[in-house]
Amino acid sequence: MQQGAVEALLITHLPDVRWLCGFTGSNAALAVTAGKAALFTDGRYTTQAKEETRGARVTIARRSAMREACAWLAEQVTHVWYDADHTSVAALDLMRSAVPAKQRRGFFAALKTPLLSDLRMVKDTDELRQMEKAAALGCSLFEAMLPRMEAGATEIAVAAELEFLARGLGAEGMSFETIVASGARSALPHGRATQARLPRKGFVTLDFGVILNGYCSDMTRTVHLGRASDEERSAYDAVLDAQQAAVAAVRPAATCGAVDEAARSVLRKTGLARYFTHSTGHGVGLEIHEQPRIAAGQETQLQPGMVITIEPGVYLAGKFGIRIEDMVAVTDSGSRVLTPVTKGWIEL
Amino acid sequence: MQQGAVEALLITHLPDVRWLCGFTGSNAALAVTAGKAALFTDGRYTTQAKEETRGARVTIARRSAMREACAWLAEQVTHVWYDADHTSVAALDLMRSAVPAKQRRGFFAALKTPLLSDLRMVKDTDELRQMEKAAALGCSLFEAMLPRMEAGATEIAVAAELEFLARGLGAEGMSFETIVASGARSALPHGRATQARLPRKGFVTLDFGVILNGYCSDMTRTVHLGRASDEERSAYDAVLDAQQAAVAAVRPAATCGAVDEAARSVLRKTGLARYFTHSTGHGVGLEIHEQPRIAAGQETQLQPGMVITIEPGVYLAGKFGIRIEDMVAVTDSGSRVLTPVTKGWIEL
Repeated sequence: MQQGAVEALLITHLPDVRWLCGFTGSNAALAVTAGKAALFTDGRYTTQAKEETRGARVTIARRSAMREACAWLAEQVTHVWYDADHTSVAALDLMRSAVPAKQRRGFFAALKTPLLSDLRMVKDTDELRQMEKAAALGCSLFEAMLPRMEAGATEIAVAAELEFLARGLGAEGMSFETIVASGARSALPHGRATQARLPRKGFVTLDFGVILNGYCSDMTRTVHLGRASDEERSAYDAVLDAQQAAVAAVRPAATCGAVDEAARSVLRKTGLARYFTHSTGHGVGLEIHEQPRIAAGQETQLQPGMVITIEPGVYLAGKFGIRIEDMVAVTDSGSRVLTPVTKGWIEL
Repeated sequence: MQQGAVEALLITHLPDVRWLCGFTGSNAALAVTAGKAALFTDGRYTTQAKEETRGARVTIARRSAMREACAWLAEQVTHVWYDADHTSVAALDLMRSAVPAKQRRGFFAALKTPLLSDLRMVKDTDELRQMEKAAALGCSLFEAMLPRMEAGATEIAVAAELEFLARGLGAEGMSFETIVASGARSALPHGRATQARLPRKGFVTLDFGVILNGYCSDMTRTVHLGRASDEERSAYDAVLDAQQAAVAAVRPAATCGAVDEAARSVLRKTGLARYFTHSTGHGVGLEIHEQPRIAAGQETQLQPGMVITIEPGVYLAGKFGIRIEDMVAVTDSGSRVLTPVTKGWIEL
């Protein structure tokens, strides 16, 4: 705040609120000045807010947490910065209406930098430990599911078992809707589990993540049921090469665009680049998609403590798809893969 | 659009996009003019968008779906309305930047009414059928879980079993993080399942919902393990009376505020109203929280086809909490409870 000459902040994006003060409820406005911090929430969270919140006074708003936060700020300061990415046009109107008319003009200003997402991009030691645990849980789920990936099982049954195991191992939930995409459905990059049955012959892509102590894991493995064709096998090898090339490109000061290009250039050599229709990865943390974006042209430089996914894939519509994804932490000297479970060829 | 003199609409809130054209991907901008509709998404959804989308042309954007939608609209019309509740201040900047400079001034206007959420409030016959199925699935889960609510089981184990059963019965997932709040934790209105163990004596609140064909269910039951105290039993009866009074108040043209008051006034008589610290309910549909809000002072009138929750509760910090929640559809003549599983006193 000092660096940016920011007098006061209003934070309403829930993962930011949690990151700053620990509160995990579904309604919160956190007001921060140079000397004070005040969390506003509602009556559902009277007890929970007191238990969880650190470093901020808790107020249970009678009507609107947001309005009360703004009114409180208006008593303390003359300017407040807000996060334009996570404040709706309607919310900004509401915020303004809560400030006395004579103070209203110029009271709110949009933060010029994505302050919170920039801060959250770099994880501290404790966060890295949490993310390592979440990622390790993901790996153990993949290993446990291998013997259960049988022809004839529905994709949903596979997802259900995986999610049940996750809960049993302590996960609060899944970090996104589990993807089990089998046979020709593996060509859908976001093929959520359906009643489709695993084929005797074909790929199955498992893309899933758990939430552990609030932190998300994210990983993808693609296995083959039955004997693969040469085309399938060589496409798999190409994706694996691309994925490993991108992981190898992860190091401090490398641009996100360069990491993306490392994967893409491998696929270009085998003529598969045009089937790689998404970006190479994304940051992950309290949210499943965080900064930075690992995509073409992204100039953001990697820094130690960032945790990103590396997940190239190829999708041949109507035929098959393959994606391999690891979670990777940027270290002082390079990178560490947080999901070290095998990504070699598996034929079940 | 004709009624509101709206020339064109830009829709980016994903449940609205799904409701209008069927597309379920995680990135979409739907542009609608009087004569045309165009859906913009990205390369991850090439196949899925074509399969799912009805009534709109599909374009796979090379960079930003939102920017391409705006550029397309700028070629068709002179004014576009957007939803201020679901458009961030940053997104509005991006939208503006995609419109040629000479057209930019006054091109975007915030919708004065929450058009989409108003439309979605009233469910059609097909939606009601889907919601009935989702609610029935919820009821069967509660019944299946009753014999498994044993002292010593962790809350997470209970949640895990419930979610596994839900998946087995066809649910795509849960509509929110399952609440299993036992013993003194039942006094937390949003007590997500933890490693805490179900007590020999005390309440357990189960609040959960499934997603079935995109539609959310939502229900809460509170059961008692072991012999209850008189205070616990009479508090339960009071909450049940309040819940039934509110259900009975549901009919076309009743205001949401009146339904809330019906519950609250019952609790006032027994001195428990001050422990009822949230509103009585909310609309539900493709999203777990939709319009209308069933809360004090809400003037919105109920209409046939609306589906709402009725969920009063009392929370005595450090002691116990009780909540009872049904999903209720407003009918031509009154209401129909979609979650008819017993809410009478259960002592296990």
